[in-house]
Amino acid sequence: MTALASSNDAPVAVICGGGTLPAEVVEAARATGREVLAIAIKGEAAAALERFEPISLGWGQIGKLFDTMKKAGCHDVVLIGGVTRRPDFRSVAGDLGTLRRLPRIIAALTGGDDSLLVKVIGIFEDEGFRVIGAHEIAPSLLAGPGAIVGPEPAGEAVADMQLARQAVEALGRLDIGQAAVALGGRVIAVEGAEGTDAMLERCAELRRIGRVNAKGRIGVLVKRAKPGQDLRADLPTIGPKTIEAAAQAGLAGIALEAGRVFIAERDATLAAARDKGLFLHGFKGELDGA
Amino acid sequence: MTALASSNDAPVAVICGGGTLPAEVVEAARATGREVLAIAIKGEAAAALERFEPISLGWGQIGKLFDTMKKAGCHDVVLIGGVTRRPDFRSVAGDLGTLRRLPRIIAALTGGDDSLLVKVIGIFEDEGFRVIGAHEIAPSLLAGPGAIVGPEPAGEAVADMQLARQAVEALGRLDIGQAAVALGGRVIAVEGAEGTDAMLERCAELRRIGRVNAKGRIGVLVKRAKPGQDLRADLPTIGPKTIEAAAQAGLAGIALEAGRVFIAERDATLAAARDKGLFLHGFKGELDGA
Repeated sequence: MTALASSNDAPVAVICGGGTLPAEVVEAARATGREVLAIAIKGEAAAALERFEPISLGWGQIGKLFDTMKKAGCHDVVLIGGVTRRPDFRSVAGDLGTLRRLPRIIAALTGGDDSLLVKVIGIFEDEGFRVIGAHEIAPSLLAGPGAIVGPEPAGEAVADMQLARQAVEALGRLDIGQAAVALGGRVIAVEGAEGTDAMLERCAELRRIGRVNAKGRIGVLVKRAKPGQDLRADLPTIGPKTIEAAAQAGLAGIALEAGRVFIAERDATLAAARDKGLFLHGFKGELDGA
Repeated sequence: MTALASSNDAPVAVICGGGTLPAEVVEAARATGREVLAIAIKGEAAAALERFEPISLGWGQIGKLFDTMKKAGCHDVVLIGGVTRRPDFRSVAGDLGTLRRLPRIIAALTGGDDSLLVKVIGIFEDEGFRVIGAHEIAPSLLAGPGAIVGPEPAGEAVADMQLARQAVEALGRLDIGQAAVALGGRVIAVEGAEGTDAMLERCAELRRIGRVNAKGRIGVLVKRAKPGQDLRADLPTIGPKTIEAAAQAGLAGIALEAGRVFIAERDATLAAARDKGLFLHGFKGELDGA
């Protein structure tokens, strides 16, 4: 019982891939008083992470990774940030601890893209660690409910928001995308494997070529997690690029699921939304109950 | 009773916009024994229509259009083919019959894109005509059930087809798109306002940049009408370009809703599918009953 209760006092290991989010997570987690063991994936982690003095480990040092985490007394692990270069087997075949786990690692690396992180989570769990979501240690990065950047959506924007929410919820139940755009009373774009930024570029193009008839700032991007989505492996996130792409698409604003979407680089993101005149709004739960 | 029963003996007016489909519809309707009054929209109808000796009318000749149809004894009207140039009011302000109907026509032309054809249908109905779907006079152009170009989808392709069907049905109920692509057990692209060809280009790009990991011919495009879709205004259609785009995306095949999707340029489309090694398959109804 003491062991369980002390879980939040033990340091959490944050294994950091690329992008700005890992440093933000480490900082936000430390700000809550939690001790953090920052581990940078060599060749992936961004320079911004360096001020948190991470331990830097390559793909061939998985044995050392587990030893380091165990010595530090870590029980909880967070995986955060992008991995652009899928390691090849030669770089993985490193230290003894890596070699011992190689069959399992190879099995994970040779699966489809989608299941890779889920398999990686399984490897950590087999070692006795508990993989948790970044939002659990850094809740301050999450979108909250209500107006984040005002004004509150009104009139046509409310109708478009409801339409896009319906679309994303229907898609989410089929495990498809996390985002959709409605404009002028119809859903014009739905996210598949291309990601939110590419979908927003498509919306800008649809307006440019006149395939969507719209004047002025109109239309709403909705982004939410899929129902049952494993937020430890894939946490929906927006950032300054999302604002820029939404502004390029001429949208009136962005609505996010409160408590399940990260706002990266919050200061820059909120400033960009204000600057471009876009509202940012947090909503709770599903439209039809829940 | 005689008047109703003779409706199919009366000539049907086919008002032809751009593309190859209008000539195909006129030809297929005549092949069923139906008398057809072909009317070409000036500046829109393709040269291929000329061998059917159409009456050519501009946007300012709407009075003459109605007179011509009435004199020919037409009760049924089909609207088919694209209209790329939305007429401006000056070109519409033509003959007396056009002027008399101008308020109604302007109301139709100034509405949103989506409702234009529905409003045009209303104008014809106000004049006592019955607007019917091209598929009703040219059923031979529709996709039939089962194998259209073999072999029948098997294994992974069946699973992908079911997934994409689920997605399109969920979207269709929300009045969004008519098409989706599933590949390797997940839906990778969903059609919004961009149209099927643009969605297929996106799939090709997703594979090219490695965002979708796939080797060889894999994945299925599903195209179907929305439930309750007005097929008189918008009939889902594939053609040789669809085959080309699906082949570029590396797909294994295409599944179409039987009886509610047109195959344009059937000989060329089927030959292209055979040439590229894509299956074409017709399915009936909805996955969950109906």
